[in-house]
Amino acid sequence: MDYSKYFDWAATSPADKEILEKSLALSMEYYANPSAVHSQGQEARKAFENARKLAANALGVRPEEVYFTSGGTESDHIPLLSVLNRSEKGRIIISGIEHPALREQCNALKKLGYDVVTVNPDKNGFITPESIAENITGDTVFVTVMAVNNETGCIQPVYGIADAVTKAANGKRKAHFHVDCVQAAGKVPLDLSYSGIDSAALSAHKICGPHGIGILYLKKDIKPFLTGGGQEKNIRSGTENLFGAHAFALCLEKYYFQKKESLSAEKKAAFELHSKLCSGFISELTQIKGCTLVPEIRSDLSPEVQEKFSPYVVQAAFKGIPGNVMVRALDSKGFSISTGSACSAKKQSRPILQAMNVKRDIQDTAVRFSFGPLTEKKDIDELICAVKEVAADFN
Amino acid sequence: MDYSKYFDWAATSPADKEILEKSLALSMEYYANPSAVHSQGQEARKAFENARKLAANALGVRPEEVYFTSGGTESDHIPLLSVLNRSEKGRIIISGIEHPALREQCNALKKLGYDVVTVNPDKNGFITPESIAENITGDTVFVTVMAVNNETGCIQPVYGIADAVTKAANGKRKAHFHVDCVQAAGKVPLDLSYSGIDSAALSAHKICGPHGIGILYLKKDIKPFLTGGGQEKNIRSGTENLFGAHAFALCLEKYYFQKKESLSAEKKAAFELHSKLCSGFISELTQIKGCTLVPEIRSDLSPEVQEKFSPYVVQAAFKGIPGNVMVRALDSKGFSISTGSACSAKKQSRPILQAMNVKRDIQDTAVRFSFGPLTEKKDIDELICAVKEVAADFN
Repeated sequence: MDYSKYFDWAATSPADKEILEKSLALSMEYYANPSAVHSQGQEARKAFENARKLAANALGVRPEEVYFTSGGTESDHIPLLSVLNRSEKGRIIISGIEHPALREQCNALKKLGYDVVTVNPDKNGFITPESIAENITGDTVFVTVMAVNNETGCIQPVYGIADAVTKAANGKRKAHFHVDCVQAAGKVPLDLSYSGIDSAALSAHKICGPHGIGILYLKKDIKPFLTGGGQEKNIRSGTENLFGAHAFALCLEKYYFQKKESLSAEKKAAFELHSKLCSGFISELTQIKGCTLVPEIRSDLSPEVQEKFSPYVVQAAFKGIPGNVMVRALDSKGFSISTGSACSAKKQSRPILQAMNVKRDIQDTAVRFSFGPLTEKKDIDELICAVKEVAADFN
Repeated sequence: MDYSKYFDWAATSPADKEILEKSLALSMEYYANPSAVHSQGQEARKAFENARKLAANALGVRPEEVYFTSGGTESDHIPLLSVLNRSEKGRIIISGIEHPALREQCNALKKLGYDVVTVNPDKNGFITPESIAENITGDTVFVTVMAVNNETGCIQPVYGIADAVTKAANGKRKAHFHVDCVQAAGKVPLDLSYSGIDSAALSAHKICGPHGIGILYLKKDIKPFLTGGGQEKNIRSGTENLFGAHAFALCLEKYYFQKKESLSAEKKAAFELHSKLCSGFISELTQIKGCTLVPEIRSDLSPEVQEKFSPYVVQAAFKGIPGNVMVRALDSKGFSISTGSACSAKKQSRPILQAMNVKRDIQDTAVRFSFGPLTEKKDIDELICAVKEVAADFN
């Protein structure tokens, strides 16, 4: 298939055919229930645990810290909802730019009496460790800040925030710090093992894996609220999905970027190539009349600025061209892009840009371009041509 | 592959290779996010909605009543946890033979202050409508009884219970009646549209579909507690799984039994064949010295008794042979069977048999044989030979 005009990788990615077909075949061979005691069950268990080992190895963490779930949403819900098992309701701190899986679920907890505090980013879309620290109280039980924002590509200072949460505990029981890594995994180098990060959510379909499978990285022992058959050491109940787990593990091997120091030469080259493609794209965009990068600072092509963003997501506003009009105009030329996230496509609101205090006309005219491992320079060149044509038609 | 010695279909079924491969290819073609607004997204949406229509048609319900989830556990959790959105905590009635997805989650709600009442079955494993009715109070918000028990195969009188729940409301707000149909779908004729059934849970991997996909049949409007991106009309958040949904729909077309009056000739023949195979198996079992059917009444081969059980699950105890010993002895001959459900395999306890007040020595020596659409007479004949050999070795 031809993915050269697909620029909505942040919504979902095309599947890696070879990986999915191989994993499906494996799952049909080891079809028994991995929790069954007979030999067939034990063989399925071995295959499943092998997938866990592969995934852990790719992530640079221990297998016992990897839990397979049904996706990013559930990987966010499990640690968050574990607060329901505490005897006292406390404070939950959430950044103002989180995915609805956390934002909406925190709202649900607010209705149950939890003190949910939203911390907004600066005008460039970054949550500062200081802004989190100053909101931490003695009864703060949960803090959540995503690693890479799905609309702006801003890489959040999650290590600094982890330090701040640890420091704020001052020797007492630390708040659980959860990091939604759905848009970070396979897009920017990540060190999940960093001290103070208690859990992280990952989703396979954002990096060429199947839908319906996610990983919850969990370093800290939690008592889950969602419960059932007790699979995944009681953290995620439901019969194990060998096809999904194995395919996700192989995708992580192929596409995941570990922390910089651990990157293989091949991965390093891939990341650098994409950083270069992205800078080139931004450079072209800034030459289009009426185009503003969101946040504006991103038009600064110095390495110090660019390295604060995922090279796989670029948001830009085009003066006088409503976002949905740009999406449709490019669509008519065969290109797929989006305004905000697919999850909020219906709602026509831009909560992340609002939290950044972005001006209304920029909000209304902002669109997201997102790339993937298969995106090539020639594809971006064609996209730029098309964007220029649309912009010219409106000027 | 050869499934002739696999008798643990109730734990999970081998996949229908043709259906899974076809669905995987479809999902790779329509790879875009169905919630995206561009043409590729709209095409993916069409493919996804087509899967919903196929599933609804196979189930004999309306497409707008079918919600795709990550599996049976989540399909049980969504309606149950919606009680958390009510302003007043009320009573929850659960049968004593439910799957842990409901039993354990109800325990979690009990800790939050809900009045959880467990209604035990009679000695034969059946929950009576009367026993449910007499526990319904004015503040009862949720009632759940499964359609077919996963260990005994007892078909529960869910239509009678639906009537009882409706009647008990006496014109006031009716309690939500949820039916776990995971072991019923594709095993016994089912009429989900029956008045008074508000929701039902189904799982694909029990009927030759993939793992990680389920259906929540939902007739009544509920406000979900679990929330996020708002997919599935806000009932189940998380990016849609086209592969899983399409494969599940095709499995339902092929294997699901609608209510008796609507069964096709082919499906009717399949069901009758399996009923006959099951009766034959039971007849052979009862001739083995020391073998007791669980419940005992099941050794009565009259149609009036047999039609109260799923022909795909048979539980039997073998005097003096601990369940796990029988499982291992058959395993050494290449046969896969189980003691209780895989979900409680680790726990060594038999909560369902306990609820039925089955004697301790029967609990300890009971094993489950479960069949699937591919099970043939010759396979059952070989199984019986093997069971006889094991039984003889111990006598």
